[in-house]
Amino acid sequence: MDETAKTRRIATEYVDRLEQRDWPRLTALLAEDVVYEMPQTRERIAGRSAFLQFNIEYPGDWHLHVRRVVADGSLAALWLDVRVAAERQDACVWLEVSDQGLITRVTDYWPEPYEPPAGREHLAERW
Amino acid sequence: MDETAKTRRIATEYVDRLEQRDWPRLTALLAEDVVYEMPQTRERIAGRSAFLQFNIEYPGDWHLHVRRVVADGSLAALWLDVRVAAERQDACVWLEVSDQGLITRVTDYWPEPYEPPAGREHLAERW
Repeated sequence: MDETAKTRRIATEYVDRLEQRDWPRLTALLAEDVVYEMPQTRERIAGRSAFLQFNIEYPGDWHLHVRRVVADGSLAALWLDVRVAAERQDACVWLEVSDQGLITRVTDYWPEPYEPPAGREHLAERW
Repeated sequence: MDETAKTRRIATEYVDRLEQRDWPRLTALLAEDVVYEMPQTRERIAGRSAFLQFNIEYPGDWHLHVRRVVADGSLAALWLDVRVAAERQDACVWLEVSDQGLITRVTDYWPEPYEPPAGREHLAERW
């Protein structure tokens, strides 16, 4: 399997194991010094055990579904459909994978809905 | 050049030509029936000429810089650093490219900063 195929598989397994709350098998995908960042809140969680704890403690009955996975060498991007009860939100996740096949960096974006600015109604339709 | 390398080049050129306001060369990258979507506002712009117009009319002295490009077959994901005067925002862009090497679909996410929810201060540092 080439590097891209390996990264693509790891990215998919990362989401699957989170969704399954399979913490031992999630741990096996993560580098000990993995860094998790959420640039929108300027939060950083450093290290595998803190990152696991963050996921274990994350409130709500959340569910993750992969809409798209794009892998390229040691990098991957995931477009997720995230549901918590009746609420739905998309997420964009950027991963870096080491030569050893471990995730070393996760960057999450959680884009919120907002009202479109005025001035482009002549070009855009709404759904 | 394989499909992934071609998609990676098209993704990079897409940003370059937007940044340069090189509308003729941007046009050459786009399928006539390209669809542009912003899921956060549930806006859709259909067709090359409307999408060009949207970019031409977009207010502000905006500047785009690629932080990361991830290409995989006919798909690409772009992580952009976008600046308008002193303001900075990241964007996540998902592209689809046709067999003819034309962009058929662009999906933009514009994640806004927000304050972190309480309850994870013991795991996260702020920057």
